[in-house]
Amino acid sequence: MSEIITAAMVVIGDEILSGRTKDKNIGHLADMLTAVGIDLREVRVVPDDQEAIVEAVNGLRARNTYVFTTGGIGPTHDDITADAIAAAFGVPCGYEREAYRLLEEHFAKRGIEFSEARKRMARMPEGAAHIANPISVAPGFSIGNVYVMAGVPAIFQAMLDSVIPSLKTGAKLISVAIPSPLPEGTIGGPLGDIQTTHGETIIGSYPKYEDGRFWTEIVIRSRSEEALRAAKKAVEEMLETLLKRN
Amino acid sequence: MSEIITAAMVVIGDEILSGRTKDKNIGHLADMLTAVGIDLREVRVVPDDQEAIVEAVNGLRARNTYVFTTGGIGPTHDDITADAIAAAFGVPCGYEREAYRLLEEHFAKRGIEFSEARKRMARMPEGAAHIANPISVAPGFSIGNVYVMAGVPAIFQAMLDSVIPSLKTGAKLISVAIPSPLPEGTIGGPLGDIQTTHGETIIGSYPKYEDGRFWTEIVIRSRSEEALRAAKKAVEEMLETLLKRN
Repeated sequence: MSEIITAAMVVIGDEILSGRTKDKNIGHLADMLTAVGIDLREVRVVPDDQEAIVEAVNGLRARNTYVFTTGGIGPTHDDITADAIAAAFGVPCGYEREAYRLLEEHFAKRGIEFSEARKRMARMPEGAAHIANPISVAPGFSIGNVYVMAGVPAIFQAMLDSVIPSLKTGAKLISVAIPSPLPEGTIGGPLGDIQTTHGETIIGSYPKYEDGRFWTEIVIRSRSEEALRAAKKAVEEMLETLLKRN
Repeated sequence: MSEIITAAMVVIGDEILSGRTKDKNIGHLADMLTAVGIDLREVRVVPDDQEAIVEAVNGLRARNTYVFTTGGIGPTHDDITADAIAAAFGVPCGYEREAYRLLEEHFAKRGIEFSEARKRMARMPEGAAHIANPISVAPGFSIGNVYVMAGVPAIFQAMLDSVIPSLKTGAKLISVAIPSPLPEGTIGGPLGDIQTTHGETIIGSYPKYEDGRFWTEIVIRSRSEEALRAAKKAVEEMLETLLKRN
């Protein structure tokens, strides 16, 4: 068996908590990590507040292989993620030489002032490594097991694409979805029994409500193809038996 | 000044963390709470795991006026929210008499077996009060300052509608959005100065990336209309000055 690799995510930003911006990054990260066999174990959405960011990052990095953050690395006063991550690691935060050079060159080429605000984007905790930003140059960074990325979805996704190949990945969690025309209340008992006898799988059951009718999506997950197949067979037989009766 | 009312949210479900289901409830709760003057301070997404749910709920209920949970109150073996909330409060969990009666009657009317699985939906922590479910009968519940609701968005929204009028609400945080054609790097410095001199407001700046161009949405929030107006004026004058120069 391969090692189990776990991850947590910290979404940073008042605008998500106020509802003004609807997060699109949680679902994307979840999909990407699942695809490469990393278990996303927890997500926290926190405000632009240093204490809240430090608490979340330190709590989560201690118990996960990786922590991914989004948001708060732009040039304005409310972008405090670099300082907060430095505080979480107890290291100084300042201009990172290569990031400063990249940004200076980028703006000079375009005849745009390299303002104090823009210089903020070169700030990183001491010892951080760059995460490339192919869209708007200002890099994200990683320190320890924490990956700090932009909140704008297009930039977050591009940064994540460059991070993923460098990660340790686990045995991929494979899954199969079985639609059940019967509602959860009917299948719940026997499905629980199947879970009990198929310990190498995780069986989830998701009620769907559409056009005034309930149906259920049963999802079986496992790191073993054989275990998945066996549980799938058990679920299908259970559904067949119940459908004959109902 | 009115009291500041704060809230946290716990989204419960493996299916959100795997990416299979994309959460739609965070944004809706954020919008609803902002509308009635309650500050959503933190959101956590946790798996169907009792220890994780207990830790999140107990951590958050101690420091917020309200905690709202979604997910895990259906009839199947992976629906463990009622037991987890009971464990968080240190009280027993069992069939709640009125919920049991409602469900029994509901299923009897429809000639549907009141199975062991369906009976699970009548389980609540001792001392819990119902949250009505106008869509599929099985109630949510509240205990202490924690409101436990369904994960299916249509049912969550209906339950929340019945909860909101019973909540203490704070002075509404009013906001104004000012679109800036100038990117964050240009406005960042002066905007930080405006934040410093307008302490009764929270000024956020959100980079927007569309069709290869950056622009910025500046959002000013305050509980005071007067403070909001003054900060808005300062931002507009700042933009005017910068636009003349650029």
